[in-house]
Amino acid sequence: MRGLLFVVSAPSGTGKTTLVERLVEIVPNLTMSRSYTSRAAREGEADGVDYNFINRQRFEEMIHCGEFLEWADVFGNLYGTCLSDTERHLEAGRDLVLVIDVQGARQVRRQGRERIAIFVLPPSPDILERRLRGRSKDSEEAIRRRLAVARQEITAFEEYDYVVVNDEFDACVERLGAIVLAERARLAVARRPAEEIVERFRAAPATDVTR
Amino acid sequence: MRGLLFVVSAPSGTGKTTLVERLVEIVPNLTMSRSYTSRAAREGEADGVDYNFINRQRFEEMIHCGEFLEWADVFGNLYGTCLSDTERHLEAGRDLVLVIDVQGARQVRRQGRERIAIFVLPPSPDILERRLRGRSKDSEEAIRRRLAVARQEITAFEEYDYVVVNDEFDACVERLGAIVLAERARLAVARRPAEEIVERFRAAPATDVTR
Repeated sequence: MRGLLFVVSAPSGTGKTTLVERLVEIVPNLTMSRSYTSRAAREGEADGVDYNFINRQRFEEMIHCGEFLEWADVFGNLYGTCLSDTERHLEAGRDLVLVIDVQGARQVRRQGRERIAIFVLPPSPDILERRLRGRSKDSEEAIRRRLAVARQEITAFEEYDYVVVNDEFDACVERLGAIVLAERARLAVARRPAEEIVERFRAAPATDVTR
Repeated sequence: MRGLLFVVSAPSGTGKTTLVERLVEIVPNLTMSRSYTSRAAREGEADGVDYNFINRQRFEEMIHCGEFLEWADVFGNLYGTCLSDTERHLEAGRDLVLVIDVQGARQVRRQGRERIAIFVLPPSPDILERRLRGRSKDSEEAIRRRLAVARQEITAFEEYDYVVVNDEFDACVERLGAIVLAERARLAVARRPAEEIVERFRAAPATDVTR
């Protein structure tokens, strides 16, 4: 059976990547998609692990050739999800999580593709600002820009199937995991195994009255 | 905010009551509805704890007066969910689980009431038969009758939103808990807290450019 496609979006600094990295560790048969990006690797990032790092020209070629399921320009850098990678995972029956921004999620939605979309909200502007300042070597200007974009982006939560707040890391991972498990139990997904059980009941001999 | 109404059905012997008893222990703000029944209390059952035990005449009066959200005749005994009890819980913002049979679940559905319906399947006819024989002092005939009804009832899984298999107790409780958490994160439910966060971002002063 084809895997389920999950889309997780959140403003920069909400911790979406860390959340989903933990999520795929604890939920079996769930993989995080590795994006392509035109930006340079940050310290500690490895090509083919955190991202597939490619130059801008190659990225633009991939756009031109229709190789992306979605792509977006985020603060001047290009990020994209490779269509064939995605298909390979889903066709193999593995559930896949795309950690993508609001623009990318809209592209996936417009394609009419079946997906379960989850928006992660920061609990408050103060906490988001503290996280942005804490984690990055971004300039003051870059941080201000991220905050302004976050303020706009969070209004997009209404375009998603689920909304979770990253108030506490473990609780938020638990909620994300609950969404994955619940979606696997939805009638449309659980129908085939359920039918197999019904079939076993049909095939079972009617219990012998005399025994 | 009004609580969510969950309906859990399963054939007799699937372990639905034990599953939901455990579920409400581990999930906060979730209550299991206490049914009314016309049957006699079994050994170890207490009135007002396991069921509200009433006689058949009183049960029929309650039906007549429209006091039941749903009721059903299950193997000759009447079981019902009190409408005012249900409303009191939901109005207080508490999520509620009804453990009811397929007939009762159909009544709730026909009323067009918002509910999340979960069907619990036994993993196989052999295991269901073993459980029925293991747990009860039922006569051979009663066990045969329950198995025949189970064979019919399980085909009703298609009328439910979610299907889980009780192959392993803890894993099944985890799946039920995941469904409750996920439903609480659905856009329609999470909209109000999300809007409050968006409002806080709107109200936050634009970060000062000069600082």
